[in-house]
Amino acid sequence: MKPSSVYETPVPARRIAIDRIEPDVDAGRFAVKRIIHRPITIRADIVCDGDDELSCSLHIRPPNTALWTTLPLTSVGNDRWESEFIPDQLGIWEFTVSGRVDYFKTWHRDLVRRNDHGEDLQGEFAEGCRMIERVIRHGSPDGIEELIWFKNALQNPDGYSAACDPELATLMATYTGCTNETRLEQPRRVRVDRERAEFGAWYEAFPRSWGSAGRHGTLTDFTQHLGYIKSMGFDVIYLPPIHPIGHAFRKGKNNSITAGPDDVGSPWGIGSADGGHSDIHPELGTLADFENLRRTAADQKMELALDLALQCSPDHPWVTEHPEWFYHRADGTIRFAENPPKKYQDIYPLNFETTAWRELWDTIRETIEIWITRGVRIFRVDNPHTKPFDFWEWLLSDIQKTHPDVLFLAEAFTRPKIMYRLAKLGFSQSYTYFTWRTEKKELEDYLHEITTPPVSDFFRPNFFTNTPDILHKTLQSGGRAMFIVRLGLAALSTGNWGIYGPAMELQQAVPREPGSEEYLHSEKYEIKQWNLEATDTLAPFIARLNHIRNSEAALRNNTPAVSEAIDEEFLLAWSRYDPSSGNHVLVVVNLEPHKTRTGRITLRANHSGIKAPTSFSVTNLLTGKERVTPFDSFSVTCTQADPVVVLKLTPIFQVTEESAHA
Amino acid sequence: MKPSSVYETPVPARRIAIDRIEPDVDAGRFAVKRIIHRPITIRADIVCDGDDELSCSLHIRPPNTALWTTLPLTSVGNDRWESEFIPDQLGIWEFTVSGRVDYFKTWHRDLVRRNDHGEDLQGEFAEGCRMIERVIRHGSPDGIEELIWFKNALQNPDGYSAACDPELATLMATYTGCTNETRLEQPRRVRVDRERAEFGAWYEAFPRSWGSAGRHGTLTDFTQHLGYIKSMGFDVIYLPPIHPIGHAFRKGKNNSITAGPDDVGSPWGIGSADGGHSDIHPELGTLADFENLRRTAADQKMELALDLALQCSPDHPWVTEHPEWFYHRADGTIRFAENPPKKYQDIYPLNFETTAWRELWDTIRETIEIWITRGVRIFRVDNPHTKPFDFWEWLLSDIQKTHPDVLFLAEAFTRPKIMYRLAKLGFSQSYTYFTWRTEKKELEDYLHEITTPPVSDFFRPNFFTNTPDILHKTLQSGGRAMFIVRLGLAALSTGNWGIYGPAMELQQAVPREPGSEEYLHSEKYEIKQWNLEATDTLAPFIARLNHIRNSEAALRNNTPAVSEAIDEEFLLAWSRYDPSSGNHVLVVVNLEPHKTRTGRITLRANHSGIKAPTSFSVTNLLTGKERVTPFDSFSVTCTQADPVVVLKLTPIFQVTEESAHA
Repeated sequence: MKPSSVYETPVPARRIAIDRIEPDVDAGRFAVKRIIHRPITIRADIVCDGDDELSCSLHIRPPNTALWTTLPLTSVGNDRWESEFIPDQLGIWEFTVSGRVDYFKTWHRDLVRRNDHGEDLQGEFAEGCRMIERVIRHGSPDGIEELIWFKNALQNPDGYSAACDPELATLMATYTGCTNETRLEQPRRVRVDRERAEFGAWYEAFPRSWGSAGRHGTLTDFTQHLGYIKSMGFDVIYLPPIHPIGHAFRKGKNNSITAGPDDVGSPWGIGSADGGHSDIHPELGTLADFENLRRTAADQKMELALDLALQCSPDHPWVTEHPEWFYHRADGTIRFAENPPKKYQDIYPLNFETTAWRELWDTIRETIEIWITRGVRIFRVDNPHTKPFDFWEWLLSDIQKTHPDVLFLAEAFTRPKIMYRLAKLGFSQSYTYFTWRTEKKELEDYLHEITTPPVSDFFRPNFFTNTPDILHKTLQSGGRAMFIVRLGLAALSTGNWGIYGPAMELQQAVPREPGSEEYLHSEKYEIKQWNLEATDTLAPFIARLNHIRNSEAALRNNTPAVSEAIDEEFLLAWSRYDPSSGNHVLVVVNLEPHKTRTGRITLRANHSGIKAPTSFSVTNLLTGKERVTPFDSFSVTCTQADPVVVLKLTPIFQVTEESAHA
Repeated sequence: MKPSSVYETPVPARRIAIDRIEPDVDAGRFAVKRIIHRPITIRADIVCDGDDELSCSLHIRPPNTALWTTLPLTSVGNDRWESEFIPDQLGIWEFTVSGRVDYFKTWHRDLVRRNDHGEDLQGEFAEGCRMIERVIRHGSPDGIEELIWFKNALQNPDGYSAACDPELATLMATYTGCTNETRLEQPRRVRVDRERAEFGAWYEAFPRSWGSAGRHGTLTDFTQHLGYIKSMGFDVIYLPPIHPIGHAFRKGKNNSITAGPDDVGSPWGIGSADGGHSDIHPELGTLADFENLRRTAADQKMELALDLALQCSPDHPWVTEHPEWFYHRADGTIRFAENPPKKYQDIYPLNFETTAWRELWDTIRETIEIWITRGVRIFRVDNPHTKPFDFWEWLLSDIQKTHPDVLFLAEAFTRPKIMYRLAKLGFSQSYTYFTWRTEKKELEDYLHEITTPPVSDFFRPNFFTNTPDILHKTLQSGGRAMFIVRLGLAALSTGNWGIYGPAMELQQAVPREPGSEEYLHSEKYEIKQWNLEATDTLAPFIARLNHIRNSEAALRNNTPAVSEAIDEEFLLAWSRYDPSSGNHVLVVVNLEPHKTRTGRITLRANHSGIKAPTSFSVTNLLTGKERVTPFDSFSVTCTQADPVVVLKLTPIFQVTEESAHA
């Protein structure tokens, strides 16, 4: 126990306590997540017994650096201290804070009080000389001459002005050094990612559906359509697994148990005689085709995200090469995936409890390294919640040590605490419950929860409107207006958003059966033909949303969505406000858009931080229309055709006689 | 870093994560505080990858015990687990929680699902047999016969009923043991104190004022007046320092710089030729007199609290015996206490930064031990915030290791974060800002802050109405009614309360000068004559308050004060509710009691937890009057004479025809 151990050391008692570090994830157990080139503010409570003055510092260490850099912490009242730094490198930064009793500063503070009170100061000057002598004795030789000068000056009749010389304070602060300094027991970690970790528009697509009619599409076919995706403004193209698809127990159309001879199978049934997780499904093309796709996307400033689905078809090479990586039942057969009574005979889960776990981990690590070598920097991880926590913490940290620009999206549609745990373990961003949050109160609560600390310090949401697995009932029945609403909600409320297309922009709305969230004729099991030229496509609206995201600083800088009061129960309103630019975007969406609704908004006063503007100049960012509204309260109408309203608010100041002369 | 270290061990990945332990003080850095014989509920989030069933346990270890006791944790939803235990010993208890993947429970859960679905179970029975075999191989020899029986039974045609036999589940749970169990990295600590740590009425008195007129009172004089203090219902008598008082720079009446020859000095100027911290001021009497006082108090179920003021008069024996424990200025003199420009020449602070710190610590430790040997079990510590944190953590823990019944009250009237830090370091209870909290909103906020977690897990308030240092301006100007208000607030809102008497019950209200919180003719510097027979004394009212505190379970069990809505801005209302007995006390006080005020109270619905009583039977615990009010809302009047109203609420259920037949 600490108390006794302190007693047993020759060091006198520490007088300083450091507490309530901010930002923090679980008392330093996990790294805080931040973005490169954005300021990071560090705060701590630092207290000492008595009323001595303190000097407190922030110490930071960039990735792969031996030396610490020290910055002063500033007291901001109530024993709280703060400072900030701007990380200029990707990777794990360390920081710690320290405090020391500043005897010189205390002496000087009291000296001024004594002087103000007309006391004789000779005894105090002698104390000051002792302090200077101590620094000369123990400190660096650099400042000695100046310190000796000050020591002598203190003994002169005008010792007081020497004592108050700021140079003496600087010398004493510099050469006292870190003697008697109390630091946090452990440094804290900040994982600094590139911007794409928290801000990006994702487009999920199955390349095999992008070929010409009646043919299995290839990566090359898909490459030719990148312009279409780019025209909608997407940043990341996420491809479901592109590896060889197994034949054993392959699923047929609509997830039927038996596949016909022409059925293409699910991309998640990975592995066949053609290879496994490092290989490309032959019908999609070659590694050269993949490289061409990646490069063409990169030329258009888009990047690929690959699917990391750690499971095997019974035909996967690992099944024969590494039977020890799978669970063998009493009868000798390998256990397929099950959720009794449901059976997934086409999938063998990897057995992470195998005694050969280290070889398994290493092979997975190497597989990812192969794709990194091939230029992939984003992985969307399938069902991470069915693999051990320790595995992820090791894997993500190990990869990011050498590749700090690699990002991982966790597809963990599971219980809230597991979802958050995975985020803490190192996933760069996460799928969310957004798809199932459809009512005003629950959307407000959810946005607040995930965009404010403690959650926002470790969890970065990625709001998908739909996925090949999730066609939410609101989209099944809500018509075009509801598609617009869900697109607006996803794109404008958080930094990362995504759609599974072209199902989304083409408003695919028919479920496999009533009550199901599966698409009828799901693209997971068959090749689709998409009419990208459809006149009712939402592609132009999506392009507009992505344009707004990129143009408005409040969205681009991923500011939190703050709910606004609006007096219509089905209208949801939120502000995004960027303090550095003053950019303010207000979004209003109609959650039941089958009728036109109008509501009066009363803004939270504190967004602009600006005192008493008289009105707002309001630009509708979807229609381009402008108007002027009162500053505090105004009404907004969401029609059936335009159920999402995006307003840019610019405060207007009336020039009064007083202010004109100021 | 953890991830790599896991990778380097031969142990496969942990699948379980434990989080959000409750109760908790700073992620386990400090002990949680609790009271003996009161249940302690422990909660934790425990999650695992996948959807396997978990078995989770609470492990507790009483003080000075080698063995851990294991209790099952129960799942209460959303991956939260809980259990409770009742500590039956004083001292530091340890607890930890653990989780393990329960393969047998998972298998059995799935077996039932498979059976319900009509599947062939033979393969599953074989799996079950393997599991039983594994336990037989690795487990204790005790259950082997039964387990073999079950293993054979699983292979019979009616294997399913054997598989579902609860005895098999018990055997498997028992003999699987703690293999593959994940525990917290460090056990947590709970400091279990006796009831007096959180519930007690304190009376502060200077024995020297309790003698006959014109004479220095003695401990024996004071002993003869214990009945008076007992009649008011106090539990603890706190004596300012009873040690020899120094002569050098002794303060005169009203804190004047020079003392007259008859001035008795401040008891906090400790140490003279007659001795120091282990000795008794000769004018107060002898050690035998002290023992007689302690015993007489104990016979009346009261105990003494001594003042631990770690500072010395210039005449203290330590000054000559241990000059190295004091700070020597450049001119060789010892530094006296100062808060520039204020000087306290009668006090030498101990220099805790001395290189001889260990001898100093040990001597203080021994001094306390001496008083413990003399039967003292409560210490009120003067200005603990001017001594190092590490010193307190060591001292308190070291003393309580051998004397777990010893309590310490921190007199740290300092900044909030230092006050809380001292509480975390081990002080049993603390002085508070109560004296300066006089307005409704600030009283509500403060009561909420200190009676709910996280604060209530480490900080136990002791609400003093006044002290020899603090005569608050409300008492200076508020008259008898305000004395009643402050007494009611202090006695009825938290577990520990105290007064400095007889100044309080005799309503001493004159400050040394306008704007000062010091008493005129303060007892700190002179002997007072108290007229305990005064007709307007508040002693009977105080006796009534203490009687109510002891009679009503809600107060006795120190339930938190929950503010109630009342529509009068100067009336403050709060409930204390004890769920185990249903006892409900509602207190209303008039914060500006110079006029009568009436307010309508709307109770929070959730106090009683009882559904739909129709009304309350209300007993006024100060007047004895009874009435019946509606359940949800009723009015309360606080007159000038009775500005504090204490109501006991008992729900009444109307007997309807339906309920009469139920």
